[in-house]
Amino acid sequence: MHTIPQLQQLITDALAVKKYGETPVELYEPIEYIMSLGGKRLRPCLLLMACDMFGGDVAQAVQPALAIEVFHNFTLMHDDIMDKAPLRRGKQTVHEKWNANIAILAGDVMMVEANKLIMQVDNSILRPVLDVFNETAAGVCEGQQIDMNFETLDTVHVDEYINMIRLKTAVLLGGTLKIGSIIGGAGISDASLLYNFGVQLGIAFQLQDDILDVYGDPEKFGKQVGGDILSNKKTYLLIKALESARGETLDQLQYWLSAINYDPNEKVAAVKAIYNQLSIREQAEAEMNKYAEMAMGNFEQINLPDERKSILKEFADALLVREY
Amino acid sequence: MHTIPQLQQLITDALAVKKYGETPVELYEPIEYIMSLGGKRLRPCLLLMACDMFGGDVAQAVQPALAIEVFHNFTLMHDDIMDKAPLRRGKQTVHEKWNANIAILAGDVMMVEANKLIMQVDNSILRPVLDVFNETAAGVCEGQQIDMNFETLDTVHVDEYINMIRLKTAVLLGGTLKIGSIIGGAGISDASLLYNFGVQLGIAFQLQDDILDVYGDPEKFGKQVGGDILSNKKTYLLIKALESARGETLDQLQYWLSAINYDPNEKVAAVKAIYNQLSIREQAEAEMNKYAEMAMGNFEQINLPDERKSILKEFADALLVREY
Repeated sequence: MHTIPQLQQLITDALAVKKYGETPVELYEPIEYIMSLGGKRLRPCLLLMACDMFGGDVAQAVQPALAIEVFHNFTLMHDDIMDKAPLRRGKQTVHEKWNANIAILAGDVMMVEANKLIMQVDNSILRPVLDVFNETAAGVCEGQQIDMNFETLDTVHVDEYINMIRLKTAVLLGGTLKIGSIIGGAGISDASLLYNFGVQLGIAFQLQDDILDVYGDPEKFGKQVGGDILSNKKTYLLIKALESARGETLDQLQYWLSAINYDPNEKVAAVKAIYNQLSIREQAEAEMNKYAEMAMGNFEQINLPDERKSILKEFADALLVREY
Repeated sequence: MHTIPQLQQLITDALAVKKYGETPVELYEPIEYIMSLGGKRLRPCLLLMACDMFGGDVAQAVQPALAIEVFHNFTLMHDDIMDKAPLRRGKQTVHEKWNANIAILAGDVMMVEANKLIMQVDNSILRPVLDVFNETAAGVCEGQQIDMNFETLDTVHVDEYINMIRLKTAVLLGGTLKIGSIIGGAGISDASLLYNFGVQLGIAFQLQDDILDVYGDPEKFGKQVGGDILSNKKTYLLIKALESARGETLDQLQYWLSAINYDPNEKVAAVKAIYNQLSIREQAEAEMNKYAEMAMGNFEQINLPDERKSILKEFADALLVREY
């Protein structure tokens, strides 16, 4: 078994020597650029952990782990165009630094590169690995489309929201863990349990992100606290508040949602006060805990001794108490 | 062996029942739309011909053939965004009918769909088929980037142009034929010969397209004659003319390239007169014939009786004398 720092080092080393292509440079420079912006490399590390847990050779899982990271960054590159985002990890997005055409095409070739990397597994598991990868990739695209649809909808229901974050964020965690487990030699049943664990963990993780946007410690939370409130983003908290607010409270919430000229601090404080009044934080935490418990329920059923499961379990626990 | 109409019918029937996905509809409607716009279905038909030629079961090649058509239409959907093209096959492009974000994301999910379809081959050939497909897909992206680069370059050399059309257009024909031959049971040597045949045929085909833009029969050629001249497109003809024109002829050519207000018919006639003066048509036809002959040279070396090769040979011959 490997420690998390050992697995992270394997990813870092592999990324450091990874080449994406030579010419035309206009196509490959943006790929080098976005891959160099860093990030926690959470997904490739999860893939290696899953492989390791089942006693697989993690060295053989490194290239598929990079596939997940390249795929994830491809989706970020295209999402940033769609969202007109100026910054990614504090640096210019690819479509800002170059242009949208470059970002479209570099993203396309990253998708091809991810397909090449994910194939670097034994022939005996090539088809099941690709099946999981393709299903996951389609799901992520569907999630992004549903998220874009939300921007123009007046009302989003909680179950629609959970389905969106399941597709946009969580299935990639589930798929990543499942691929890692297949490479590690897991049977169908354990691979499915780990997939469910990953999806439910991913939903809990996104719900926590929604909570931290409002209630996170500004010094530990990387983003601007209240950013979702200022952009009227349909998070679990806002959806739940719109669902349960009545009378004057609902009027106030609608007022802030349609306000054009306002003091940002005042809006964040006012919406937060409404959330507090409606016990939104408690409801969101209950929902998050529900998914976290479902995740752990699946995890516990995996047919492995506890000592083999301890590293991934600790990692999952740590993921859900982050305040940064 | 099957006739071309029989193979085309297999493609038509398979496309008619093909489903791409249900929800969200915003993601899948544009895919149904672009796939319904028609086209000659040249590439999937080539894949079936290659399979059939080697005695393979064409029924088993239909889904991989659709993969090529879906992939091709994905590249058209993204290229149309980049080129700001309003029309595709006489109908609104996806980014015009919906918007650019929809066209980016629907294209992405088409790429995933193409990957799912291309996998529908026997396990024994899954890896070689995917290797060809991924190499081809990366090449097509590179070709599109090089083509975009050309728009901002003052000078493009003939060899750079040939390399661009090789990547953007020809490798997909080569890759398609190679995949069909692998499914049909061809050995490595024959599959490579057929790949080379396809690439060289594709280059000849694109050169013919450049020639027809200027010298095609307006009643048979589908597009506006002289369209490339009016848009200053760096075709083989223009590149060659810029390379060989001297003195007053070069001045005249430069004048028309930089002219802003002009009568379109006058510009087409003037540039055509320069091409005639420099014997550009003859040079372009010689180049086209060179690639056509190289293509046939590879084709002849394929280790099959002539009667098995006759259908693909006739198809290739017909492709290079089209005037429409």
